Amino acid sequence: MVVDKFRVTPWEVSGEVDYNRLIEEFGTKPLTDAQIKKIEQIAGKSHHMLRRRIFFSHRELDILLKEYESGQKFALYTGRGPSGNTHMGHIIPWIFTKYLQDAFDAPLYFQITDDEKFLCKPDLSLEETNKLAYENALDLIALGFDPKKTFIIVDTDYAKSLYKIAIQVAKKVTASTAKSVFGFTNETNIGMYFWPALQAAPCFVPSIREGKNVRTLIPAAIDQDPYWRIVRDVAPKLGYLKTAAIHNVFLPALTGPTGKMSTSSGQHATVFTTDDEKTVRKKIMKYAFSGGRDTVEEHRKLGGNPDIDSSYQWLRFFEEDDEKLKQVYLDYKSGKLLSGELKQILVDKINGFLKIHQKKKEEMRGRLDEFLLKD
Amino acid sequence: MVVDKFRVTPWEVSGEVDYNRLIEEFGTKPLTDAQIKKIEQIAGKSHHMLRRRIFFSHRELDILLKEYESGQKFALYTGRGPSGNTHMGHIIPWIFTKYLQDAFDAPLYFQITDDEKFLCKPDLSLEETNKLAYENALDLIALGFDPKKTFIIVDTDYAKSLYKIAIQVAKKVTASTAKSVFGFTNETNIGMYFWPALQAAPCFVPSIREGKNVRTLIPAAIDQDPYWRIVRDVAPKLGYLKTAAIHNVFLPALTGPTGKMSTSSGQHATVFTTDDEKTVRKKIMKYAFSGGRDTVEEHRKLGGNPDIDSSYQWLRFFEEDDEKLKQVYLDYKSGKLLSGELKQILVDKINGFLKIHQKKKEEMRGRLDEFLLKD
Repeated sequence: MVVDKFRVTPWEVSGEVDYNRLIEEFGTKPLTDAQIKKIEQIAGKSHHMLRRRIFFSHRELDILLKEYESGQKFALYTGRGPSGNTHMGHIIPWIFTKYLQDAFDAPLYFQITDDEKFLCKPDLSLEETNKLAYENALDLIALGFDPKKTFIIVDTDYAKSLYKIAIQVAKKVTASTAKSVFGFTNETNIGMYFWPALQAAPCFVPSIREGKNVRTLIPAAIDQDPYWRIVRDVAPKLGYLKTAAIHNVFLPALTGPTGKMSTSSGQHATVFTTDDEKTVRKKIMKYAFSGGRDTVEEHRKLGGNPDIDSSYQWLRFFEEDDEKLKQVYLDYKSGKLLSGELKQILVDKINGFLKIHQKKKEEMRGRLDEFLLKD
Repeated sequence: MVVDKFRVTPWEVSGEVDYNRLIEEFGTKPLTDAQIKKIEQIAGKSHHMLRRRIFFSHRELDILLKEYESGQKFALYTGRGPSGNTHMGHIIPWIFTKYLQDAFDAPLYFQITDDEKFLCKPDLSLEETNKLAYENALDLIALGFDPKKTFIIVDTDYAKSLYKIAIQVAKKVTASTAKSVFGFTNETNIGMYFWPALQAAPCFVPSIREGKNVRTLIPAAIDQDPYWRIVRDVAPKLGYLKTAAIHNVFLPALTGPTGKMSTSSGQHATVFTTDDEKTVRKKIMKYAFSGGRDTVEEHRKLGGNPDIDSSYQWLRFFEEDDEKLKQVYLDYKSGKLLSGELKQILVDKINGFLKIHQKKKEEMRGRLDEFLLKD
């Protein structure tokens, strides 16, 4: 979608995103208080990403919840394009997906698109994207997913099953549609043209594996929504249920409050799950956009602006404790908390998370095979 | 290729084909006496399809023969699109391929494109094209191919291996190229856009399976050449050898001397390998285009025209004995042989062939698995 002040497509997010406008333009629905309450009730506990409306939009959530309450299970589906190391923005929907898996006892199908990243990145070989795929998979597994109900699909490992489904999708999608939804041109390679069909395939894998119609729920950042519009069109034509979706806002780049964090925003704007303590500290201290005043005196007197401060914004995603977060907000706004101090709170939070995360990744390295779906 | 009087693309052959013009337009080379002699010398015997220039054009044959003589083996690659029963036109290159396999002790990779026929035929399901694939495979096997060196690839059975190769091809081919080579439009489905890459993949399977660079030689009707122009462009970019090709003219439709026989020319114009004796007799007697005169008297006096007579033209493809063929030609031309008698000769020839062929198909039905390459 392109409007005057911002741009959101699966490949580009820029400008100051107006999420209400995005709901309208994409044709999704805002997540309601009643829906949040219902999810929390089923889960038996709340989640800060719901409370803070980090997840803010959905498709078909009402019907999915109604089906669930009448005894119909659903499957979760999300994924990762392995073009580099995983960063903190990628794992936002994964953290929430773990909550959903526990709450709804739902299997998770997780697609890692080594084929797509090979096709769309001129400089990456298939060997490289495939290797990154397994590294990225460890970032998912480290979050505590249950190997009995978590099925990781590295595309080239499961290509036989996926291809058979993908050609059924592809037969229903014209080049014209692919061009308008994904912005393909005549110079785009023919692998990319086909690829939306391959990304749709995992939506139907749960139904095929379980031998009955299983709806999938896709937790993902809102920019990924166009992919699922094609699968939603095609699903009923192939006899499957339409996929449901729940969308999150973007983790802003460290360097500023607009767009979303991505590897292409530059190394400084991004914290990777592979960064060591020192690197995290340096990135945040040096590059995190500050909502503080020019001098300590001024800051003490007038207070900072947490709404544009990247460190505070990041804490909204990663600090689960509402009271702590509120105190940071108030202290920063009042001028009690200085920018350097706020940054230090974020450094500690991220490094605390990564210390455990990196340890778990190494612990799980030998158990990767338990999660992989192969032909 | 489209010219004033005829049209040859992978999907359409119509009009009176000027094969010399085709060589020029496609940029292939005419098969020379020296090349034919060389092949016959290696084979230790001649083949009527070479002697009669049913195979008439090639690409890279000189280099292939030179490599062979210096000890480098090559692989054969041809195939079949399973949109219906196999007809007599399809098996022309297969009969010749058997001769080449024996002559050069070459492995044959035979692709059966259940995926493509599903994608391009609105009314065919994947189950149907897949079922036809195995039936069509029996038509190949019945010709006597050696299971130890014949590898049949039904696309959806070998999709994992093919997909990994195909995306490497696809990355090098733009939609623009696919449009111009295959006539795709914006309304063509995205599966077809990708499909040329999947058809290219088996060219590289011999190299991958044998762990060294193996050139492939593609015996096929000339209308299939555009497919291989893409693979020939891409092969060196991926570190493979360019494919060689040897092209045959089209078996004309029974009903007339122009175009090529195809299922879409109508059931009457086509003899299927599944037709029973009575059906073959009826089709030839009733529908074979005749080069004879209007009355017996006139025919006896002026003679017939074998050059436009479908029965005679078919005998050029199926009667291996030069002397017999020559006698038929002379007798028909002189008026000694009547049109009904010429048709009877063809009926006996085709029914004789099909009797053995159909028996072999049934004998080999239980041995199909010995030939299939699966992931």
